[in-house]
Amino acid sequence: MVNAFACHQPKGPLTSFDYKLPDIKPDEVDIAVKYCGICHSDICMINNEWGVSEYPLVPGHEVVGVVSYVGNDVENLAEGQWVGLGWHAHYCNHCNQCEVGDHNLCSQAQGTIVSRHGGFADKVRAQAASVIPIPEGMDYAAIPPLFCAGITVFNPMVQFDIKPTDKVAVVGIGGLGHLALQFLHSWGCEVTAFTTSEDKKKEALEMGADHALNTRSEADLEKSTGAFDFILVTINVALDWNAYLTLLAPKGRLHFVGAPLEPLNLQALSMIPKQLSVSGSPVGSPTTIKRMLAFAKKHDIKPIVETYPFSEVNQAIERLNAGDVRYRVVLSHDVN
Amino acid sequence: MVNAFACHQPKGPLTSFDYKLPDIKPDEVDIAVKYCGICHSDICMINNEWGVSEYPLVPGHEVVGVVSYVGNDVENLAEGQWVGLGWHAHYCNHCNQCEVGDHNLCSQAQGTIVSRHGGFADKVRAQAASVIPIPEGMDYAAIPPLFCAGITVFNPMVQFDIKPTDKVAVVGIGGLGHLALQFLHSWGCEVTAFTTSEDKKKEALEMGADHALNTRSEADLEKSTGAFDFILVTINVALDWNAYLTLLAPKGRLHFVGAPLEPLNLQALSMIPKQLSVSGSPVGSPTTIKRMLAFAKKHDIKPIVETYPFSEVNQAIERLNAGDVRYRVVLSHDVN
Repeated sequence: MVNAFACHQPKGPLTSFDYKLPDIKPDEVDIAVKYCGICHSDICMINNEWGVSEYPLVPGHEVVGVVSYVGNDVENLAEGQWVGLGWHAHYCNHCNQCEVGDHNLCSQAQGTIVSRHGGFADKVRAQAASVIPIPEGMDYAAIPPLFCAGITVFNPMVQFDIKPTDKVAVVGIGGLGHLALQFLHSWGCEVTAFTTSEDKKKEALEMGADHALNTRSEADLEKSTGAFDFILVTINVALDWNAYLTLLAPKGRLHFVGAPLEPLNLQALSMIPKQLSVSGSPVGSPTTIKRMLAFAKKHDIKPIVETYPFSEVNQAIERLNAGDVRYRVVLSHDVN
Repeated sequence: MVNAFACHQPKGPLTSFDYKLPDIKPDEVDIAVKYCGICHSDICMINNEWGVSEYPLVPGHEVVGVVSYVGNDVENLAEGQWVGLGWHAHYCNHCNQCEVGDHNLCSQAQGTIVSRHGGFADKVRAQAASVIPIPEGMDYAAIPPLFCAGITVFNPMVQFDIKPTDKVAVVGIGGLGHLALQFLHSWGCEVTAFTTSEDKKKEALEMGADHALNTRSEADLEKSTGAFDFILVTINVALDWNAYLTLLAPKGRLHFVGAPLEPLNLQALSMIPKQLSVSGSPVGSPTTIKRMLAFAKKHDIKPIVETYPFSEVNQAIERLNAGDVRYRVVLSHDVN
């Protein structure tokens, strides 16, 4: 029996929920959950904002734990091994995307909390291909957010071949942005943080930003004209995106990992003269997650987290909804 | 004295106009114009649609002719040599973009017909760096459109590393699109033409398209879901661009060389799940123009043109404005 926390209706509170797992499949493993982050996507799923939620819904897709059982065909994981599980818990493993290692773009990939039960529990099950070994010596209690927030900002650095000589801006310094600053700083880039919060400007500089500017300041935007090779947008509110295109150097890219719901209202003529690109990307592949973990370990990159016991999950979600968290919440079975 | 055709006010007719050139600079050459294409951009400039026109304005930036005089420092061109001149007639040659060969993205580049007099004339002057030798044996009378329309569609194939195994769609089969079909066919790609004209569907297949679909047919769009690695947009009218994003395979790109004036209204959430890009690009660099000419010669790629004497320039522009031209107009000093 799995002891979990589930919500039973859209926006409903989470309550204790026990469920029984079927027989394990040969390619699956069970993970004894030790820690689990709370992500903005968990809240979207709790609220059924994407219309794909099924209740009772057990959120949780930033899992860190220990393998407790392995299916018969699993060769790359062993009981007792520390592992992480992110947004995806299953891939088809035979489509064009899976074949080239882009499992995160597999159209048949299954979300860990979409028609499956996630990591707000003492146990979670997933296909071994989606379960990532954690390098020894990492701070297990702090790193759950790497498995969704972290990989979401790290992945475009790999996909779009960001170079250490590039000048990069990060728009929005929150759960995703505070990790992007750390990754990009260690990547060697000149990093500019855009935030609307004066407090966060100071913290951004401490996290590795070389400059901190105000997201909505026309003067700050104007002095950055043509300055950036890459702008990473981690927010989901509307800005004047054509104005942000003017901040790009020739061949620059405005890249969205946050998803503003308003149309971007881009002008083709804002992109054509300087050969600019606008793009988006989701989480990363298993291989990219492994590369991220190794890089985070080497450079001592860590999410800044607030830790709560699983029993206080509803209070933690309230803090998140209020926008008070700096910068990410982790639920822990270690604390009461 | 240069004998040219100029317009003297926005939308005004072109009339005979003689002007005197100053002393030639050491890095310039004069070209005896033999043929000159008429491009949509010439008409934009005649109408002052971009607010940068100066009158009297001599249009013409798809020039083919013979070098008639070389400045003292010019080493790579000789009198009597067949050459072409496109949108740019001058680069700074020392900015980051020029230094890496992206002269077309030089912010100081000068348009051949922007504050300069263009190729609707018997002579045109340009910086040697912008003047491209034409491989021997090409059909000089037919190829002027390669120097703007051609390079505009060929350049993104190089810039975005289109592969012969890619599936590519071309939206709009006109002056640009009919060249894109030919280039992409010879590049080895599976090519789909999108057009609203039933006549052009047939012609598109003859020009190398493997499939021809209707730009505004929901059924045609639906059966192409996820089909394309690259969609090249050559039109400047509004379409449902989010619908076109659904036609892209993972990591696909929707690329604009035509510039719809309406905002593109893209949703970030249309781009994120499949890691899609939207982009734009202008004409190409001198090196890319040279590669295009060599490729066009090898594969016998030619613009399909209607030829008029320079004296009938106003009638030719009327035909263009009426949308009747298939597929491009060339003015010639060979015909009367």
